[in-house]
Amino acid sequence: VTVFEHGDGVTSKGGYRHFMLKEIHEQSQVIAATLEGRLGDHQVLVNSFGAEAASLFEGVRQVHIIACGTSYHAGMVARYWIEKLAGVPTQVEVASEYRYREVVVPEGTLFVTLSQSGETADTLAALRFAKQRDYLGSLAICNVPGSSLVRESDLTLMTQAGPEIGVASTKAFTTQLVALMLLALALGRVRGANGEHAPLVQGLRELPGVINQVLALDGEIEQLSMAFAEKHHALFLGRGAHFPIALEGALKLKEISYIHAEAYPAGELKHGPLALVDSEMPVVAVAPNDELLEKLKSNLQEVRARGGELFVFADEGIRLEPSEHLHVLRMPAVTEALAPLVYTIPLQLLAYHVAVLKGTDVDQPRNLAKSVTVE
Amino acid sequence: VTVFEHGDGVTSKGGYRHFMLKEIHEQSQVIAATLEGRLGDHQVLVNSFGAEAASLFEGVRQVHIIACGTSYHAGMVARYWIEKLAGVPTQVEVASEYRYREVVVPEGTLFVTLSQSGETADTLAALRFAKQRDYLGSLAICNVPGSSLVRESDLTLMTQAGPEIGVASTKAFTTQLVALMLLALALGRVRGANGEHAPLVQGLRELPGVINQVLALDGEIEQLSMAFAEKHHALFLGRGAHFPIALEGALKLKEISYIHAEAYPAGELKHGPLALVDSEMPVVAVAPNDELLEKLKSNLQEVRARGGELFVFADEGIRLEPSEHLHVLRMPAVTEALAPLVYTIPLQLLAYHVAVLKGTDVDQPRNLAKSVTVE
Repeated sequence: VTVFEHGDGVTSKGGYRHFMLKEIHEQSQVIAATLEGRLGDHQVLVNSFGAEAASLFEGVRQVHIIACGTSYHAGMVARYWIEKLAGVPTQVEVASEYRYREVVVPEGTLFVTLSQSGETADTLAALRFAKQRDYLGSLAICNVPGSSLVRESDLTLMTQAGPEIGVASTKAFTTQLVALMLLALALGRVRGANGEHAPLVQGLRELPGVINQVLALDGEIEQLSMAFAEKHHALFLGRGAHFPIALEGALKLKEISYIHAEAYPAGELKHGPLALVDSEMPVVAVAPNDELLEKLKSNLQEVRARGGELFVFADEGIRLEPSEHLHVLRMPAVTEALAPLVYTIPLQLLAYHVAVLKGTDVDQPRNLAKSVTVE
Repeated sequence: VTVFEHGDGVTSKGGYRHFMLKEIHEQSQVIAATLEGRLGDHQVLVNSFGAEAASLFEGVRQVHIIACGTSYHAGMVARYWIEKLAGVPTQVEVASEYRYREVVVPEGTLFVTLSQSGETADTLAALRFAKQRDYLGSLAICNVPGSSLVRESDLTLMTQAGPEIGVASTKAFTTQLVALMLLALALGRVRGANGEHAPLVQGLRELPGVINQVLALDGEIEQLSMAFAEKHHALFLGRGAHFPIALEGALKLKEISYIHAEAYPAGELKHGPLALVDSEMPVVAVAPNDELLEKLKSNLQEVRARGGELFVFADEGIRLEPSEHLHVLRMPAVTEALAPLVYTIPLQLLAYHVAVLKGTDVDQPRNLAKSVTVE
């Protein structure tokens, strides 16, 4: 495992044209650093979450995850993971919504916050609100040691993304996903899952290598990006744990290219957004090779039938032949549960290249701040 | 209370230019019909949900609501209501997502489906999936007697919207909201809430009258609609139980005017979508006079500062002076919990008038079917 050194050059562009591109390319290293020392031979080390984590996790019956923006998308993926791997019902909510409503807290609920900076105003306020309520305890997943969120939570798991300069978050997001996978595995282990998650632990070890394979697709993705530069709209589709990845891909494109990109769970297409689809609205689909692929394929046919230009990111094993209006980017094989993490990378690269073509200020997009520390 | 007669003329346009406009204007009548016989002097009649409802509701510890499209938005509003009025944790999920994941069902969970037709393929499949799991029981809220959803559920509450012809759902949505409010009040009553909800029951009785007041704003809304006819984008903002209303407003505009409208919880604006806002993207905000108004006001200032044209639907008691780029539509006073229902109406009318200006096929928008009875 390679440890990412946060030394000299961390706040320089290191030969890359933009911080964002540098940060995208750092992802295999910072994911390795986030895993470092937290995996045993066949399982996650529960004390990575602190000495009291094991006893606290034993009492967990439900999980509430609270975050904003990109971190909220990470939380949405985690819901699928925690329910599947640990069997614990999980609810995910935007911090600015959560803190203003009358939340009912079931017995044994763990309160989890996600924030790169640890200073996101609404997330911090949500933690303070939660501490007045009957939660089992609080866990912060955060990238900045000593931040308010870290100081005020019972347990913490630090991501090792290093400083993130680009306003559009990339490596902070994927390291959050790694941390959340560790949480799902830890909750599963404490609740009695044992050997069955060993292949997933092995998949985590292999993850930095898979990420490097995806990063090598950069040139191909740059080619695809040309189809988006003149467009004003885009639709991103995913199913299951890849719906939040579609949301994150759309958000990246919005943030730095100012293209109005929107994400939908693919099954909702017929319930409204299909009315928008025409040749002016490219459609991006995240289609890893899992049980939902067949369903997604029928959605894709609907889009093609309506003149939409389709861009599908799909496992190399998938039988899907490219044609005039159907572009397929082949992705390397990956442990199924980890696919959301891996499929994030090409969407980051796509947004980056579209923004460069459009000539926007990639690292400092208009109207946005890096950390939203006011409400 | 006026009972809506489903007699002659139900499937004619009755003097209106489109079925959709007729159906929008029927809402006070069909809401009254949906309430008819279901309210006692100061409380909801629990047996409106069936003879076994009271004993089943006593065991409810959590609620799962499953639906698609517009019905999903109704479910999202209900989550706020059920948690607040009955203190029961509630989770809402899109049917096409729910049925394909490994759902954990906490003890004592009531499974609720929403569908106008009762034949929505994914919702029906979700019900059949749920019946194999350890739910306390199932409740369908539906507009078509004898439909599959009604036949296969333990309990049913029929909305009395009458036949809905326009593909874009209007009166089916608001009557679903009324039915869901009755559910929240019934669960609250069974769990010991007593006199404190009497003002809300009174508010329900007065609701048809308030809806008529809003329908009288039709001409003003038609004026506002001109600002949208040449636009390709729109952003809808809301907070709390009005975020789903913003989603529904954006969906209506998408469905029938083909304008790319997207909704966000207002607090998420700074986390990405603000990058999109400029003079080409009108912003619509739903701002009833509640505790979130001050927060929403600061979001609105951000939009104005970036050159966005703002359209605010606000309580007549709100101090918000219209100016060159800030248009304010004054709404009648309404019982706070019922505001989401009332604020739906102007957004339906806005979408309708924009579509008429654009000359689209309002009742039969391209690419969409009335009931999505295939996956």
